[in-house]
Amino acid sequence: MDNNLKIGIIGAGRIGKLHAENIVNNFRNVEIKAIADIFADKIEDWAKSIGIKNIYKDYKEIINDEEIEAVLICSSTDTHAQITIEAANAGKHIFCEKPIDFDVKKIKEALDAVEKAGVKFQIGFNRRFDHNFKKVRELVQAGKIGDPHIIKVTSRDPQAPPIEYVKVSGGMFIDMTIHDFDMVRYLSGSEVEEVYTNAAVLVDPLIGEAGDVDTAIISLKFKNGAIGVIDNSRSAAYGYDQRVEVFGSLGAVTVSNDTDTTAVLHTGEGIISDKPKYFFLERYKDSFVVEMKEFFDSIINDTEPPVTGIDGLKPVLIGMAAKKSYEENRPVRIDELTL
Amino acid sequence: MDNNLKIGIIGAGRIGKLHAENIVNNFRNVEIKAIADIFADKIEDWAKSIGIKNIYKDYKEIINDEEIEAVLICSSTDTHAQITIEAANAGKHIFCEKPIDFDVKKIKEALDAVEKAGVKFQIGFNRRFDHNFKKVRELVQAGKIGDPHIIKVTSRDPQAPPIEYVKVSGGMFIDMTIHDFDMVRYLSGSEVEEVYTNAAVLVDPLIGEAGDVDTAIISLKFKNGAIGVIDNSRSAAYGYDQRVEVFGSLGAVTVSNDTDTTAVLHTGEGIISDKPKYFFLERYKDSFVVEMKEFFDSIINDTEPPVTGIDGLKPVLIGMAAKKSYEENRPVRIDELTL
Amino acid sequence: MDNNLKIGIIGAGRIGKLHAENIVNNFRNVEIKAIADIFADKIEDWAKSIGIKNIYKDYKEIINDEEIEAVLICSSTDTHAQITIEAANAGKHIFCEKPIDFDVKKIKEALDAVEKAGVKFQIGFNRRFDHNFKKVRELVQAGKIGDPHIIKVTSRDPQAPPIEYVKVSGGMFIDMTIHDFDMVRYLSGSEVEEVYTNAAVLVDPLIGEAGDVDTAIISLKFKNGAIGVIDNSRSAAYGYDQRVEVFGSLGAVTVSNDTDTTAVLHTGEGIISDKPKYFFLERYKDSFVVEMKEFFDSIINDTEPPVTGIDGLKPVLIGMAAKKSYEENRPVRIDELTL
Amino acid sequence: MDNNLKIGIIGAGRIGKLHAENIVNNFRNVEIKAIADIFADKIEDWAKSIGIKNIYKDYKEIINDEEIEAVLICSSTDTHAQITIEAANAGKHIFCEKPIDFDVKKIKEALDAVEKAGVKFQIGFNRRFDHNFKKVRELVQAGKIGDPHIIKVTSRDPQAPPIEYVKVSGGMFIDMTIHDFDMVRYLSGSEVEEVYTNAAVLVDPLIGEAGDVDTAIISLKFKNGAIGVIDNSRSAAYGYDQRVEVFGSLGAVTVSNDTDTTAVLHTGEGIISDKPKYFFLERYKDSFVVEMKEFFDSIINDTEPPVTGIDGLKPVLIGMAAKKSYEENRPVRIDELTL
Repeated sequence: MDNNLKIGIIGAGRIGKLHAENIVNNFRNVEIKAIADIFADKIEDWAKSIGIKNIYKDYKEIINDEEIEAVLICSSTDTHAQITIEAANAGKHIFCEKPIDFDVKKIKEALDAVEKAGVKFQIGFNRRFDHNFKKVRELVQAGKIGDPHIIKVTSRDPQAPPIEYVKVSGGMFIDMTIHDFDMVRYLSGSEVEEVYTNAAVLVDPLIGEAGDVDTAIISLKFKNGAIGVIDNSRSAAYGYDQRVEVFGSLGAVTVSNDTDTTAVLHTGEGIISDKPKYFFLERYKDSFVVEMKEFFDSIINDTEPPVTGIDGLKPVLIGMAAKKSYEENRPVRIDELTL
Repeated sequence: MDNNLKIGIIGAGRIGKLHAENIVNNFRNVEIKAIADIFADKIEDWAKSIGIKNIYKDYKEIINDEEIEAVLICSSTDTHAQITIEAANAGKHIFCEKPIDFDVKKIKEALDAVEKAGVKFQIGFNRRFDHNFKKVRELVQAGKIGDPHIIKVTSRDPQAPPIEYVKVSGGMFIDMTIHDFDMVRYLSGSEVEEVYTNAAVLVDPLIGEAGDVDTAIISLKFKNGAIGVIDNSRSAAYGYDQRVEVFGSLGAVTVSNDTDTTAVLHTGEGIISDKPKYFFLERYKDSFVVEMKEFFDSIINDTEPPVTGIDGLKPVLIGMAAKKSYEENRPVRIDELTL
Repeated sequence: MDNNLKIGIIGAGRIGKLHAENIVNNFRNVEIKAIADIFADKIEDWAKSIGIKNIYKDYKEIINDEEIEAVLICSSTDTHAQITIEAANAGKHIFCEKPIDFDVKKIKEALDAVEKAGVKFQIGFNRRFDHNFKKVRELVQAGKIGDPHIIKVTSRDPQAPPIEYVKVSGGMFIDMTIHDFDMVRYLSGSEVEEVYTNAAVLVDPLIGEAGDVDTAIISLKFKNGAIGVIDNSRSAAYGYDQRVEVFGSLGAVTVSNDTDTTAVLHTGEGIISDKPKYFFLERYKDSFVVEMKEFFDSIINDTEPPVTGIDGLKPVLIGMAAKKSYEENRPVRIDELTL
Repeated sequence: MDNNLKIGIIGAGRIGKLHAENIVNNFRNVEIKAIADIFADKIEDWAKSIGIKNIYKDYKEIINDEEIEAVLICSSTDTHAQITIEAANAGKHIFCEKPIDFDVKKIKEALDAVEKAGVKFQIGFNRRFDHNFKKVRELVQAGKIGDPHIIKVTSRDPQAPPIEYVKVSGGMFIDMTIHDFDMVRYLSGSEVEEVYTNAAVLVDPLIGEAGDVDTAIISLKFKNGAIGVIDNSRSAAYGYDQRVEVFGSLGAVTVSNDTDTTAVLHTGEGIISDKPKYFFLERYKDSFVVEMKEFFDSIINDTEPPVTGIDGLKPVLIGMAAKKSYEENRPVRIDELTL
């Protein structure tokens, strides 16, 4: 047991708990030595039930534990950059949930600290590890569709988040579309250079009053010459809609939604099949395990993590450009933002 | 037989011949009294084989034949407006292939003549009569998806036209996307107010040299608040790709491609199904018959044709705005063009 | 016009009318010189409206018309064999609706007359000309699935026929399954040697009282070693279900139902697509035209028709074996019936 | 930890190991106290790596351990009945892999011992816990398709087992089709009364030489009046084919194969999607966890297990009837075998 990789988890909300349980159930050679949460007392029973012995209120106790080699930063977004810096300075490898921050300067400071410390840094873009999207990427990389011409992402949530969340979310482009910005980079193998946002408040006027939008079509230009489009809605009546398509000189690859079953009911009313899996926890269940595996592997084998610091920065920049494009109703180049 | 509707066809290229044969095979109460083509001698055998007795070089012989009640204008685009005016002045009902013209002023003159003459005028946007798209429209109109939020059209040709054609085509937006502009108006039940074009030359550099593009993502804003997107390519390796999706407050309706068969081959290589029907003649075969039926019905029953003059004008305006948007890389409002 | 193939149609019920209209609309070089029906007065308006000039009460007037080269026998089943014999003796080519007769002896007499006269004889198994099934056959013949091992046919009607029809239909196996018996011969490229019938009355007890069944699973052994199964129902709530599957050493080919559109409605209730096309007239619409084309081609080019006398006899024999199997609850070899 | 359910596993071949790992990863309140295998030394490293402390050569050590409340019998089939009897006599709850035995008398003795001891007894028909089939069952039970008329199961393995295995497998009907016999009982909610087998050796002549068949169509009659059919092949080139269909008075429910991804590649060659998941370990992965959960729940809550002794007996009887039917080429009633 002494050969185990010892890690600490900072933040035990929904996603922190999910990672903890996935690790306990799937990685026998990884030990969660400690978990920290500002509501430490509330998570005690749960943490003990999965065998975590050390439960702290202050994440610094994890940072200061020399035995801990790696940390998972699952706390609220406004703490990501600061904890990243502290963990890097303490020589710990870092898995950080997205986004690193809403502020580019703070993201860069965090990435600088990571670089200086020479620790592994992986950002939580779990969808890259989804079976469907990984297959699309593989087919594209293998040249099966030739040169990519058009990248399309449809990404719609089953229902809008509470309005209180909307207000602190950083806006739809940073909170929700950020995953899609990562996805188009991943699938195209290229960088977004310019973005034009066509957006509206069609789901709930309260979202508009909170200064956000809930429906968008975002047009993209890539460095390799390809073009792309993302469409978003905060509320799809039929459920979580997660489709992508890459079209190129030799063909196209598409993925449709996963469903709970392949059952089809044939009646006088019509031919009825399953709705998509409910939401991201159900839809991307396996990807959360795979991203952990890849993170641990990169530490154990001393290799580059599959989603790095730049992958954490770029989608935030694209999100900011998308927002600016919406506000000014004009295409915005990403390099307008990168001074 | 004296009760038959007598018509004349002007222009016996591919589409003129198609209409002629469809009429002979499907409308027993319609008689093609004459057909005119500048290469009259070349079509003689064909015309006689389907029972058309009068074959003219000069379309004016059709305009001047008082027995002929309606004309189909299937000649080259640059003649549509002028022939429309002459036919309207002669009191003939008109079915005119799209586009009416590349010039808005000439379109308006033609529509003015039609209005003054009080004749029926139908424009050849045949896709409105396609079984799939008609069903989408019906479901949207019936409120099955609630208020439309996002309208998406994928429209890709199996292969680019000859470069000589590209040069005189009016450009991809007027030649090809025009059908999609009509489609989004038809499906949304609303008018396009603004357009932003993201386009590129990815299929063939010769198309770029000819001053045109071959790949595009066109973002749209509708009067009713909905947003939309069209993606185009001049060349899809797997064939003619014609899909639409309307997403709204209560759900979505999608249509996929038609295929020749439902056969699926299951082998060690994979699960392989049919490619889309080859091109527009195969894919929209039935729609060309239905649009004729609707045209004849509007004459016989003295009702409004299902695709009118304004439906001929609007897509040209959107196409021009799309081109301007591409040239200036900014969103362009349709009313910038409508002075 | 004198070069036209002149034909006569005997019987102007639903199927006779269908053929007549298909011929008028699709075959310009074929002239329906006459039509005969015992209710000649009732079809007069219709026949004239499609340009048929000679309408007879007595089919012998067609037989005796020396100018008529071919006849379509679309009268009631009990007259098929007799008219076939008379037409053959008069040297006319024959297209005969299925079944030739319920009585094997009479079928053989008819086929003998045809053979002696040396005329073309095609039986109306239209499903062989269906786009889907033809593709299955082509893939099988091309060796794409290797040696056929299992042939499966699902064939269910949308609703049971009137009980009065059931009583005179010859029973489900001869009336309905006969098409499926033809299909398995067509798809397997082999002959059925033995049949075991598992059948029940589950749709309507009146069908049972009429001495028939309405639901069946029929197990088959083929001469080439393959095995097969047909399942039938007289009533499928979701519509006309017509699927086949051929499974072999290298894979399988399946076809699913045709639908009116590819539209899919996505709502909170589920993902809903079109039911199958309503019934055989809609589902097999094109096949009725193609079988005529093939018949006329075989006359014009003096080639073997694609569905010959033996193809008319075999399915009746299999149907009789299926019935015997049901009555005796044991597998029955076809050659038990062929003395 | 003292509240844990303590179990022992007898037999650590592929399926025994699978259960062990599933338990360790998924059931924190269940402790595998011991595992027994005749090749105990070969499994030691593996067993320790997942935290099992006691590794025995002789399963009796598990039977005799009073702390162990339940056993999983995963040893070779010929030992199932005997171990069941011993475990039952020792008062242990039993999960037994299928089949209980090839001999009905021995099965009955085992079931008698279980009944006398009053212990829980669950048989390993894992497919009942598969997401797809469970949904079919639920829809049928909920009356969504009305009264069941036709039950269809397609069950084809990706490749034939080694010939040495075939020789000791009990034959295809007991080894492979047994799952399908269970499935039709589960889906129909009724008992099979009669079976007729149409089978052949088409995959590999060596299978025939070993006295077995490799391809079959098995026709079934159910007590509730429904009829059914199973088709089997030992070798499907495109992979593991596991589909079912229940057709009834109000409609039908079908399930198709699960795939690794929803990716579809569209090229000039065709539209290509994923093959089925490779084989039962991949395809039914989750069902093995669920069946354990249900077994443990039945112990903890003292409820009836979901698959009981009679469910272990009946499919063996049907399998024997299927074999007899094949040998005698006649339908065989199950009650011919139940004296």
